[in-house]
Amino acid sequence: MSDAASFHSTWSNLAGIGRHPETGGYRRYAWTEPDLLLREWFAAAAAERDLAIVEDGNGNQFAWWGDPARGDAVLTGSHLDSVPDGGAYDGPLGVVSAFAAVDVMRTKGFEPARPIGVANFVDEEGTRFGIACAGSRLLTGSLPPEQARALRDRDGLTLDEVLRHLGRDPDRLGADGDLLGQIGTFVELHVEQGRGLVDEGSAVGVASAIWPHGRWRFEFRGRADHAGTTRMDDRHDPMLTYAMTALAANKQARLADARATFGRIEVEPGGTNAIPSLIRAWLDARAADESTVAGLVRTVQRQAFERARRDGTSVEVESESVSRATTFDPELRDRVVAAVAGPSEATVPVLPTGAGHDAGILSTAGVPTAMLFVRNPTGVSHAPDEYAERADCEAGVAALARVLEDLAGPPDAGT
Amino acid sequence: MSDAASFHSTWSNLAGIGRHPETGGYRRYAWTEPDLLLREWFAAAAAERDLAIVEDGNGNQFAWWGDPARGDAVLTGSHLDSVPDGGAYDGPLGVVSAFAAVDVMRTKGFEPARPIGVANFVDEEGTRFGIACAGSRLLTGSLPPEQARALRDRDGLTLDEVLRHLGRDPDRLGADGDLLGQIGTFVELHVEQGRGLVDEGSAVGVASAIWPHGRWRFEFRGRADHAGTTRMDDRHDPMLTYAMTALAANKQARLADARATFGRIEVEPGGTNAIPSLIRAWLDARAADESTVAGLVRTVQRQAFERARRDGTSVEVESESVSRATTFDPELRDRVVAAVAGPSEATVPVLPTGAGHDAGILSTAGVPTAMLFVRNPTGVSHAPDEYAERADCEAGVAALARVLEDLAGPPDAGT
Repeated sequence: MSDAASFHSTWSNLAGIGRHPETGGYRRYAWTEPDLLLREWFAAAAAERDLAIVEDGNGNQFAWWGDPARGDAVLTGSHLDSVPDGGAYDGPLGVVSAFAAVDVMRTKGFEPARPIGVANFVDEEGTRFGIACAGSRLLTGSLPPEQARALRDRDGLTLDEVLRHLGRDPDRLGADGDLLGQIGTFVELHVEQGRGLVDEGSAVGVASAIWPHGRWRFEFRGRADHAGTTRMDDRHDPMLTYAMTALAANKQARLADARATFGRIEVEPGGTNAIPSLIRAWLDARAADESTVAGLVRTVQRQAFERARRDGTSVEVESESVSRATTFDPELRDRVVAAVAGPSEATVPVLPTGAGHDAGILSTAGVPTAMLFVRNPTGVSHAPDEYAERADCEAGVAALARVLEDLAGPPDAGT
Repeated sequence: MSDAASFHSTWSNLAGIGRHPETGGYRRYAWTEPDLLLREWFAAAAAERDLAIVEDGNGNQFAWWGDPARGDAVLTGSHLDSVPDGGAYDGPLGVVSAFAAVDVMRTKGFEPARPIGVANFVDEEGTRFGIACAGSRLLTGSLPPEQARALRDRDGLTLDEVLRHLGRDPDRLGADGDLLGQIGTFVELHVEQGRGLVDEGSAVGVASAIWPHGRWRFEFRGRADHAGTTRMDDRHDPMLTYAMTALAANKQARLADARATFGRIEVEPGGTNAIPSLIRAWLDARAADESTVAGLVRTVQRQAFERARRDGTSVEVESESVSRATTFDPELRDRVVAAVAGPSEATVPVLPTGAGHDAGILSTAGVPTAMLFVRNPTGVSHAPDEYAERADCEAGVAALARVLEDLAGPPDAGT
């Protein structure tokens, strides 16, 4: 099988899992049926290649070429779960490219001097339980297991209940220092989620940094009342406070060259003819540096409070998750750039991203970490239209194989 | 049993049905389990009084004192379903007061010359299937049965499927001219949903008119995208268009002395880190006259279109239900006012309402119709805090009994 054929046959086995027939988007949420099928797919792809499957207590899957107990392993891979109606590439491209890169290296007769692993990190998007990168955060200890066990999905089920129901032991959740100690380097390949590589005219780039970002839950409270009989002056309508806050967040993000989004909202009681009593809405905010994010959220919050006074409503804001800026290891980054460039010594763009990744979590935990991006012609992501050209995906696999050969090859073969 | 005791024992049997333990509000939606329990309660209250139960093909229940086939019947009653987390009084007060008024008349030894009926109209709030007063609209023919059968609830079930599942025959839905022809007069008692009677210092009032009102479904479409990586300038975020529209509706309603409310909204895909692709939001708009409502909706719509151009989004607006103004029969109204005033000849306030009622549907269908309101000390309605004083409820029962005696008494006893 050619390198391209290996990528595409591995890829096509995935395409049908968790895809919604009407929207065409993926609904692959942690520990749901599609996710369990994805885990089976991962185990099968590993078995086909005689890679040894290891699972940590958090449900992260690892497929090993060589014994990880030897230490100083080179780990690659990404995640398989999705946002609601997400695209096919965000996550899976990194896992499929990792398996395909193993095939490429073996075809060439490459013999790794360091163990090479392919990872599937569980619950990267945080769609179901609200915390992004839950799997890598648990592994590295930045998400305490008792907090994880108590997380609830939209149906009110805790992660603890969900795991027990699947016959898993929630007491095994938590940091795994032994496993983490075996990982010498992590390299994650990911579809780009903007149009930076389009502007640069390159199929593959390398990450410099991840922007700091966070999620804040706003609760706007007013008084439920009849929509037909309650005079406008007698109302305490939290929908108005929310609406002004959503517009303010957009405006402040533009002013600060940041990003702010309200993409999820819940309304109580939610009747057409009832003034709401409660609006729950989630602000996602990101910027190039932490003080800009903090300043943005502070300003939006202040404007929400001011409007609430006018509306006779109240606002409470709670931070659900905040990730600090990640700057990837500069030495590793330069080595990866050289390996991606390869013998052609083509220019490889180095660029930051506004998206969070498991790579950011591992980097923060002290693992030397790098990321490769594959060009996204439209920049669309977290949507059914997310897309990458076939040739760019193949260029990504080839680049990842060169990077892994460089990192896992005999010491004297390094650049 | 005293008159007051009859009211309160009938009332207390209802209090637990469909009440949410956390919010304290009622979730009594058409053809759900609480609604079926309410239907059983209605049948039991009728049986206790030896009233004959009749059901039409739409599920409206009638309890008859005297044979309705004699015609020119006096119908009273209301509905038992609720909005999400609604109050205890909106609907049930009218049904319980009707049974209690029957008890009062019988205690006095009153012998009706016309048949008297107590009604429970099905699905008045339209919470589940989106059309208010569905039961009375079907009975009178203003809601075509084929349209009703195709209505879907939030789980995607059609009314047709729901009725079949309950062993009912959806082919029996539709207008019932025979039954309608038997109703000579309809009088609905209802808790007031504003503070008009508080201002007047009266426990009971009579309706002059129902404001015209309607529901419009706004669909704001943009493009789903990653919240972290999509530059603010590259977005097509329909949440912004919606937010401006919600604020505009509020402002226009204030300017026009009307009412406008967005109380229900759906977001797709609904992820914290995804810019929405679609916002579906329902506008409830009402005013004293039809041209004000139409003008309000037109202005809000125009402002939504203008903002959509700026946001790179689109807006579609569909009218889901529009009710014209109802002016209740003036002759009947005067007779009801006199009966409510009784021997004391107290002043009885006559006032309009912004809320829709089955009384409005029957009036539009040509049935001479009147409404009594019972004072609501806070004006709160469609909310768990909805409330009426015990003494005011008893005054309502006494007034309703006087009205029914007047209307159903021997011709020479009329005023």
